Amino acid sequence: MLFRQLFDPESSTYTYVLADPATRQAALIDPVLEQAERELALLAELELTLTHVLETHVHADHVTAAGRLRERTGCRLVASAQGASCADLHVRHGDEVKVGGLTLQVLATPGHTDDSLSYHVEGRVFTGDALLIRGTGRTDFQNGDAGQLHDSITQVLFALPGETLVYPGHDYQGHRVTTIAEERRFNPRVAGKDRAAFIALMAQLRLPPPKKLAIAVPANRACGLLPAA
Amino acid sequence: MLFRQLFDPESSTYTYVLADPATRQAALIDPVLEQAERELALLAELELTLTHVLETHVHADHVTAAGRLRERTGCRLVASAQGASCADLHVRHGDEVKVGGLTLQVLATPGHTDDSLSYHVEGRVFTGDALLIRGTGRTDFQNGDAGQLHDSITQVLFALPGETLVYPGHDYQGHRVTTIAEERRFNPRVAGKDRAAFIALMAQLRLPPPKKLAIAVPANRACGLLPAA
Repeated sequence: MLFRQLFDPESSTYTYVLADPATRQAALIDPVLEQAERELALLAELELTLTHVLETHVHADHVTAAGRLRERTGCRLVASAQGASCADLHVRHGDEVKVGGLTLQVLATPGHTDDSLSYHVEGRVFTGDALLIRGTGRTDFQNGDAGQLHDSITQVLFALPGETLVYPGHDYQGHRVTTIAEERRFNPRVAGKDRAAFIALMAQLRLPPPKKLAIAVPANRACGLLPAA
Repeated sequence: MLFRQLFDPESSTYTYVLADPATRQAALIDPVLEQAERELALLAELELTLTHVLETHVHADHVTAAGRLRERTGCRLVASAQGASCADLHVRHGDEVKVGGLTLQVLATPGHTDDSLSYHVEGRVFTGDALLIRGTGRTDFQNGDAGQLHDSITQVLFALPGETLVYPGHDYQGHRVTTIAEERRFNPRVAGKDRAAFIALMAQLRLPPPKKLAIAVPANRACGLLPAA
């Protein structure tokens, strides 16, 4: 698999390129609107054809490039059945998405938001904001639910092999990747804590709202294509 | 090989962890002083023993954590014979550095600075500021030399197999990695340009001096251990 991790410094968002080297078909996971031209330039240089954009969830901290990329390339947009209605393909737990010869397995990992998905392919899992490196997504808006997030992390993601590489939707400390084994042992929000303790911890975080919440959520429900002024 | 890429957002510097999974011996390439505790925490969690810190060159944009890490762990510091005199091991083109069962090959790649080295190991090359992703280091201080940098890139680095993964010392556009094949084709400073054109291009860049130049260079010549006030 051809693989690239890209970073948007404004929102600290990771975007991923996955491609099948044989067919040159490629997918992007969680592209950011302001970086759409960067991603298109890289795909062109690598001689890849974008066939799918996959969203891990309706983001609250940045606007997706999904709609823009569909307009430019004709690719298909993939999201949760609970996610953006403008997607071409609504997927749920257990579904598979084929990108050339690659098969991505869809895992429902709700709790950060009700539509949160992870994608598992060839020893890597893309966890969006469900599981971060030594952290988790917040659970205080967009139908977030701390108990549900604890279940998603400990029962769905931690059930993957320990050596699985975990690629999250964000990192704010300069880390790039972790493994399931590391997060089982060292994730301070879940390691050695039961479900009730996790719920109590998340309830007392009292984080400020994301800066782009009011703009990003409605924009992302429209695949990043903002309503005409 | 166990491998991690880490990022320092202030200086946009990449630091690399390379380790031999069998012996748990590890090296860091280009650690940043302000991130020393982050790196030590990660090494401890991964149950790795730091045996070497390798510098690609005397940096002008950040202070190295090398001396701090040597104090804390007893590791050996590796630098060019033209680099910091406080290093334990001065290496030159063709030398090898053993980290557990890993063998890093030293490539002299001067031109950004006169002491610039790259390290090649198991299909990856760590190029410091000689070769960046679609860019190169500047050549206007610390005995930089554009002709020498062109030779280093086109004759030393581009002689590696095309599929070699290139991990640079910095990136400012959110890219993480490239390949030798990509840089041969798409690096705008060298692709399709001869040595004279590269020298002319570098001569007219007129970049402002790095913010930390006056602090970082003397500090790094002392392995990042600043003289007592």
